[in-house]
Amino acid sequence: MRTIEWSDGIVTTVDQTKLPQKEIILKIKTLDDMAEAIRNMRVRGAPLLGASAAYGLALTAFNSRVSNKDALIEELKSSGKTLKATRPTAVNLFWAIDRILKKIIDSSKNLDEIRYLVIQEAQKIADEDVKANRAIGKNGAELINDGDVILTHCNAGALATVDYGTALGVIRAAWEQGKKIEVIATETRPLLQGARLTIYELKRDGIPVKLITDSMVGFLIQKKMINKVVVGADRIVKDAIINKIGTFTLAVIAKEYNVPFYVAAPKSTFDLSKMSKEITIEERKQEEVTHFRSLPVAASGVEVFNPAFDITPYKYVSGIIHEEGVFFKKDFETFGIDTFTKKNNPEIV
Amino acid sequence: MRTIEWSDGIVTTVDQTKLPQKEIILKIKTLDDMAEAIRNMRVRGAPLLGASAAYGLALTAFNSRVSNKDALIEELKSSGKTLKATRPTAVNLFWAIDRILKKIIDSSKNLDEIRYLVIQEAQKIADEDVKANRAIGKNGAELINDGDVILTHCNAGALATVDYGTALGVIRAAWEQGKKIEVIATETRPLLQGARLTIYELKRDGIPVKLITDSMVGFLIQKKMINKVVVGADRIVKDAIINKIGTFTLAVIAKEYNVPFYVAAPKSTFDLSKMSKEITIEERKQEEVTHFRSLPVAASGVEVFNPAFDITPYKYVSGIIHEEGVFFKKDFETFGIDTFTKKNNPEIV
Repeated sequence: MRTIEWSDGIVTTVDQTKLPQKEIILKIKTLDDMAEAIRNMRVRGAPLLGASAAYGLALTAFNSRVSNKDALIEELKSSGKTLKATRPTAVNLFWAIDRILKKIIDSSKNLDEIRYLVIQEAQKIADEDVKANRAIGKNGAELINDGDVILTHCNAGALATVDYGTALGVIRAAWEQGKKIEVIATETRPLLQGARLTIYELKRDGIPVKLITDSMVGFLIQKKMINKVVVGADRIVKDAIINKIGTFTLAVIAKEYNVPFYVAAPKSTFDLSKMSKEITIEERKQEEVTHFRSLPVAASGVEVFNPAFDITPYKYVSGIIHEEGVFFKKDFETFGIDTFTKKNNPEIV
Repeated sequence: MRTIEWSDGIVTTVDQTKLPQKEIILKIKTLDDMAEAIRNMRVRGAPLLGASAAYGLALTAFNSRVSNKDALIEELKSSGKTLKATRPTAVNLFWAIDRILKKIIDSSKNLDEIRYLVIQEAQKIADEDVKANRAIGKNGAELINDGDVILTHCNAGALATVDYGTALGVIRAAWEQGKKIEVIATETRPLLQGARLTIYELKRDGIPVKLITDSMVGFLIQKKMINKVVVGADRIVKDAIINKIGTFTLAVIAKEYNVPFYVAAPKSTFDLSKMSKEITIEERKQEEVTHFRSLPVAASGVEVFNPAFDITPYKYVSGIIHEEGVFFKKDFETFGIDTFTKKNNPEIV
C-alpha cells in the first residue's frame, strides 16, 4: 500500500503523529485539511510533502465550483500560497506546487481540462516518486556490502515518501538482494520519527534493527559498531544538504572516524540555485521539546530552541544517491555540485 | 540545603527520578534502601554517588547489632560489596567505600569507636565534596568571560554532588562574580537529567538557560551560538574522561569548531591507574529508551543499545578543572596526565 493515495476527491493517508501505537487512517477531502495535516506533521518527509501538496491542489481542483478557467487558476494559486505557508524547509513541497501551476497557467485548456490536468499531474508526481525511490534503492544498494551495519537518522522510509523510501529504500534494496545487513536507528528527538516510524517500517519488513538515542552515535562509531551512514534530505542546495536536526552532528562524527556518509534523495529535493544561508530553517513550537505527547519532561517555563533541520556542508558528505546514479565526493569536489546537476538534470537548475 | 544529609541514622535526600514535577523527600534508613536508591538513580551524579555510598556504610555501622569489632568489619565489607554492585562506572562510589574500609581495617579501635569512625568519615567525605565543588567553581570561573554562552550536558550540578556542583559550580561561580553568561542545556536522553535537573537548578538560581535536544548541538555550534562547553565526569582515567552518554559526540563537534571543551571534576573522580578500555561502561535497561516514564515512545519489541556513558579521549579535552587548579591540554600533552596527578595528588595514583 502507498503512504498516500487519491481516489475520487479523497486523499487517504495515515496520521504519522499517532504511529506506531495507533494506526489512524485520514480521509482528507479539502485543501484546508491537507494544509493542517502538513503543518502538524500528520504527513511528513520531503518527498511525501511534495505528493501531499500536489494532492492538496488536486482537492482544490476537484472541489472548485467556479464557472470559468481564470477563476480556477486564481483559486489554485491561492491554494498554492496556503500550502507554501505550512512548512518552509523541504523544497519538494514548493517544487510540486510550482510544477503544477506552471502546467496550467497560460495553458490553452478549458475549465474542465485544467481540473483534470491538475489531478493528473498530482498523480504523476506521486507515481514518479515511487519510481525514483526504487531507482535510488537500486543505485544505493551497490554501495552496501554484505555484513554492513548501517546507521540512519529520522525516517526516510516509505512513510516519508509515496512508497519504498529513500535512505530506507537503499536499505530495503540491499536486503532484497540478500545482503545480510543490520540497521541502527536514532530515535530522532524531538518528534521521535526514528523510534516510532523507522523501527515500525523495518520490523514490518523483518530487517534487523536496533534503536539508540541521538546522543549514542559517537559511542557506537568510536567502537566501530557502524560502518556506513545513510540518511535522506529535505533540501539539497549548492553548498550543503539540509535534513532533520541531528544529521549534521552525525556527519561530523562519521567523518572523524572515516565512516562513509551517504545522502539518498530524489531530484525533486534538489534546489541547486540556492545556498544554505538563503534557506529558512523551520523553528517549531517549544512543546515538542518540553513534552512527550502531553507528558511534561522538562522543568516548567523553560525557553527552548527547536530548529527542525540542520545544515551539513559537502565536506562531510561522501556521496549523494539519486535516481540516476550516485554523485560521489570526488565528483563534486572536481566539478562542483551544479555542474553535476546541469549535466544530469538540466531543467531543475 | 545539601542534596544529601545525615542525621541520627537517617539519610535525607530527594528522589531525582521524580524531579522536577514532584519533590519527593526520601528518608533512607537502611543499606538496602540506599543500594536501591543508587541502582534506580534516585540519587545520581558521580560525587553524590561517593557521598551516598559513604552514608550507606554509615547506615550499616549505625544499625549494626553485632557484639564485636570483627563482625562489624565483616558486615561493612559485605555492605561495601552490595554498594559496589549497584553501578559500575562512576569511580567515586568505589573510592568512598575503599576510603572508609581502609580506615577501619587493622585499626586499633574498638566496636563503638569503629561505628563512630565510619559515620564520621562519611560526613567528612560529604563535607570535602562541598569544599571541592566551591574550589572547582572558583578555578573554573576564571576561564569564563563576560558574555559567554556555555553548553553543558546532563546534570553536573548541586543535585549531582553534595552541594553547588562541578560543571554547574563553574557556571554558578562565574554568575556570582557578576559575569553575564547564558547556559544552553542538552536534555540528555534517555533519562533527561538536563531537561529535568539542570534546568530546574539554573532557573531556581535565576541563571539564564535554554533547553535543546542532544541532536541540536551541531547546529548551534556551527551557528557560533556556543563559545564554551563545560561538563562533569564520572571517571577520569589515564587516556580519557568518561561521562554521560552524549559527551563524546559533543566533544567532537566542539573540537571541529575550536570551541573550548572543559571537564570539571573533583579528585575523587580521578582513577589514573586505569585506561578507558579497562572500565565497564554500564548498559542500562531497554525501557529507559523505549519509554518516557510509562509512556511507550518506540515501536514495540525493538532491541535497544543503552550505554549510560561514553569515552572522550584527551585529544578532545581543552582542560580539566579540579579543586587545586586547571590542568590544560598543553600540560597533559607535554607532561602526560599521570605526571600531573603525581605532582598534585600523589596519594591517588
